[in-house]
Amino acid sequence: MKISIKEIAELTGGSIHGDSSKIICGAAPFENAKIDEITFAGSTGLLKNIDQTGAGAVIVPKKFKASEKELVLVDNPNVAFTKVLAFFYPSSNPGYFTRKNKGISPDARIGDNLKCGIGTLIAPFVAIGKNVILGDRVILHPGVVIGDEVTIGDDVKIYPNVTIYDRSSIGKRVIIHAGSVIGSDGFGFAPDGIRYHKIIHTGLVKIEDDVEIGANNTIDRGTFGETLIKEGVKTDNMVHIAHNVVIGENSVIVAQVGISGSTTIGKNAILAGQAGLAGHLKIGDNVTIGPRAGIAKSVPDGSIVSGAPEMPHRLWLKVQNILPKLPELKKTLRNLEKRVDKIEKN
Amino acid sequence: MKISIKEIAELTGGSIHGDSSKIICGAAPFENAKIDEITFAGSTGLLKNIDQTGAGAVIVPKKFKASEKELVLVDNPNVAFTKVLAFFYPSSNPGYFTRKNKGISPDARIGDNLKCGIGTLIAPFVAIGKNVILGDRVILHPGVVIGDEVTIGDDVKIYPNVTIYDRSSIGKRVIIHAGSVIGSDGFGFAPDGIRYHKIIHTGLVKIEDDVEIGANNTIDRGTFGETLIKEGVKTDNMVHIAHNVVIGENSVIVAQVGISGSTTIGKNAILAGQAGLAGHLKIGDNVTIGPRAGIAKSVPDGSIVSGAPEMPHRLWLKVQNILPKLPELKKTLRNLEKRVDKIEKN
Amino acid sequence: MKISIKEIAELTGGSIHGDSSKIICGAAPFENAKIDEITFAGSTGLLKNIDQTGAGAVIVPKKFKASEKELVLVDNPNVAFTKVLAFFYPSSNPGYFTRKNKGISPDARIGDNLKCGIGTLIAPFVAIGKNVILGDRVILHPGVVIGDEVTIGDDVKIYPNVTIYDRSSIGKRVIIHAGSVIGSDGFGFAPDGIRYHKIIHTGLVKIEDDVEIGANNTIDRGTFGETLIKEGVKTDNMVHIAHNVVIGENSVIVAQVGISGSTTIGKNAILAGQAGLAGHLKIGDNVTIGPRAGIAKSVPDGSIVSGAPEMPHRLWLKVQNILPKLPELKKTLRNLEKRVDKIEKN
Repeated sequence: MKISIKEIAELTGGSIHGDSSKIICGAAPFENAKIDEITFAGSTGLLKNIDQTGAGAVIVPKKFKASEKELVLVDNPNVAFTKVLAFFYPSSNPGYFTRKNKGISPDARIGDNLKCGIGTLIAPFVAIGKNVILGDRVILHPGVVIGDEVTIGDDVKIYPNVTIYDRSSIGKRVIIHAGSVIGSDGFGFAPDGIRYHKIIHTGLVKIEDDVEIGANNTIDRGTFGETLIKEGVKTDNMVHIAHNVVIGENSVIVAQVGISGSTTIGKNAILAGQAGLAGHLKIGDNVTIGPRAGIAKSVPDGSIVSGAPEMPHRLWLKVQNILPKLPELKKTLRNLEKRVDKIEKN
Repeated sequence: MKISIKEIAELTGGSIHGDSSKIICGAAPFENAKIDEITFAGSTGLLKNIDQTGAGAVIVPKKFKASEKELVLVDNPNVAFTKVLAFFYPSSNPGYFTRKNKGISPDARIGDNLKCGIGTLIAPFVAIGKNVILGDRVILHPGVVIGDEVTIGDDVKIYPNVTIYDRSSIGKRVIIHAGSVIGSDGFGFAPDGIRYHKIIHTGLVKIEDDVEIGANNTIDRGTFGETLIKEGVKTDNMVHIAHNVVIGENSVIVAQVGISGSTTIGKNAILAGQAGLAGHLKIGDNVTIGPRAGIAKSVPDGSIVSGAPEMPHRLWLKVQNILPKLPELKKTLRNLEKRVDKIEKN
Repeated sequence: MKISIKEIAELTGGSIHGDSSKIICGAAPFENAKIDEITFAGSTGLLKNIDQTGAGAVIVPKKFKASEKELVLVDNPNVAFTKVLAFFYPSSNPGYFTRKNKGISPDARIGDNLKCGIGTLIAPFVAIGKNVILGDRVILHPGVVIGDEVTIGDDVKIYPNVTIYDRSSIGKRVIIHAGSVIGSDGFGFAPDGIRYHKIIHTGLVKIEDDVEIGANNTIDRGTFGETLIKEGVKTDNMVHIAHNVVIGENSVIVAQVGISGSTTIGKNAILAGQAGLAGHLKIGDNVTIGPRAGIAKSVPDGSIVSGAPEMPHRLWLKVQNILPKLPELKKTLRNLEKRVDKIEKN
């Protein structure tokens, strides 16, 4: 694949420094890029050393001054580079879609009343319940199982062995990676003092547009009402989201995070890896939760919290520094006690 | 669906206050219920505000005094409500069971000598090994894979893409949610100083009656002997249970808990989310383990422990309160040292 | 199955004490072994009590002195016993392989240009992309999905419902347990201040020879370049390995560990359960990381670290001992303050 600097500038909404007719044949990271490839430099560190990349062209911030290389100047080099990557690596459908099975594979099994859009691909060994609606250009990989009355929007990509329970609703351009489970029953039981009685979960999961769900996630349906993943949310692998959780727009949830039932998370939140959140909390907008934090209380808008129990991140950094010094502090305290004993005796 | 107050009282073993002929058309939570629906109020908080629900009828504890609403008085409103929910939301089988494939789908692949009960449904794309025994009314969803010599009791429901390794034994009325893996090899290797030699796991997994396993769990087989999940145990999503673990009757294990090899847990235990248990421990009956606790020692019957290392829960609450104050305490200590220095000098 | 002591000695490279013609019919653990079975005793504890096992023969270390039982004396009894177990429990293929479908099942769906070795078994409901290479004696269980241009070496065993994304490369004798996902996209997005733009992951996953991956793992592909699992690595269940991670030879990763992007782990490392590692770290060779440790900094060769933040393991043991005493220490400090107040006043 080939593209000129001029075309890259058009693709990324950038302006050009140097030879706009130069042809670029690939995109690669700063350290590895070759003379016919383009890379990007967003940080001041990389910009300072821009002559050290082997790349023939570099995407840089608008304010960056001239270099000897061809430059494409943009608002956000990282974002611009994602567009160039998408040009060089257009997604193609795996070979199991291509044999005799354009569109709906004869080896898929589909319940009554499927409404299926244009250009949608259903792989072999996909099972679909009744009254399901699939948008245009949806891709369902092998082993995907979809329950009754599920709705899936346009341009959704569901990777192999994903299970979507009945009545789940998936927006447009959603990606769900392999092995994830959407809409399983929440963990709700009524104890009678001896055993637990299952509470039937009559709710559902709703996933809005432009969400990406990592591999082997579990997102439970609402006990009543819905578990709601709002527009633009991204989850990493093995994220657990319990019944009736709400996750706000463009929030990001890193691997192995667990969110307990009925907790609400605002928009633009960042939950770092392995954090755990108790149930029925309200986490505000623009909150950052540190890695492995154990969150037992609600967190107001804009806070950065860490630790278990959660505390302001800066305080947690101090606490973290003290923990390894506890044995020493204990010794100091004991010594001090003895010294005071002595003073009191005199 | 419709049901009279009289019938609800019969269903739940309750007595009636008000008009027993009143017809109820649905069940909903306290805040959302409408005039033709029933809800429940178990807590004193809800009971105090019983006139604030829009519900036409309320399930309440036996001792509750009259209100203007129709009441069904029962021992345990929560449990009674699960029965009403089960009436209004009878489970139905997804549409992929209903086309041409009553009973065993022609698109399932089954090894020799299957013994299969009455009313059992095997979906398309289910693969079953040899000498498998399935009870009556078992439901195997698409993508379920069952190894040789597995036994599954009556009324078991196994959701899509669950894998059950050979020789596992599953009791009656067990539910296993999507993506869970039962009977994989335990993590056992013999090191020779350079590399690790696989220890063949000759044991199995036994799951007793009325167990519910969440989505994407992993339950390893015994190295020798069995990994045993006793009657009535409930696990949430992404629970890891290692080889030769025993979990006692009616214990409850919340999401992302990990239990290491050969640890035994008593009955009626509660393990909160993301807790981790070391191997070869003995956790007693009626133990509660706090969220994210790291349990390195055995825990006697009836204890409530939290923290890492584990400690009595009340002590942990105090420790949790002190952690954020450590920087302040350190400062106090340093000041005190200086003051004592001064005193000593004089 | 039967085997003589002489044959066991040959199998394990051991020497014999007692009757070499004695016939052994099984292998079992020390406590459970019967008179016609063999067991092993590697620890001094078991060796001291060797007469208490019911076993008819025992595998013991070379230096062990005579007992009344038949003995096989070897360098490493644990390793020798794995060989005896492998004799008594040869792996057999589940019954879903055996009906009409020797080799490649007619119920598998395979893309163009498959290169498939001798003796390879492909179960029903396996989907394979194009240009895939499978070695000799590979076993693909039902529900396995393999993307385009994947390469799999000889004697690999992939359990049900595993997903392997395109271009992944799997070495020889690798075992991957059910539900694991290899090669999903890394968690990489470029924020523009409002939303996140997906970074196309052009890299891949490479798994070298003799690796065993537990159930429900997730191993992400490289953003660029590869995520690399080197020879002999063993992972337990639910291990998360992010993009561009490198794991050195014969390292062992226990259940529910999470390793963030671009972190490198040396050889012979042990990562205990539920540990979490930040991104871009360098963990040295022969490092041991304690259970539930939160690793935020690089760790030099040969270190044993625990806790969060990580610290030398011995220090962590001391810190762990002090944590439950913090309330008491706080009280001591407060008292001391008052005493010093008093002294100062006088």
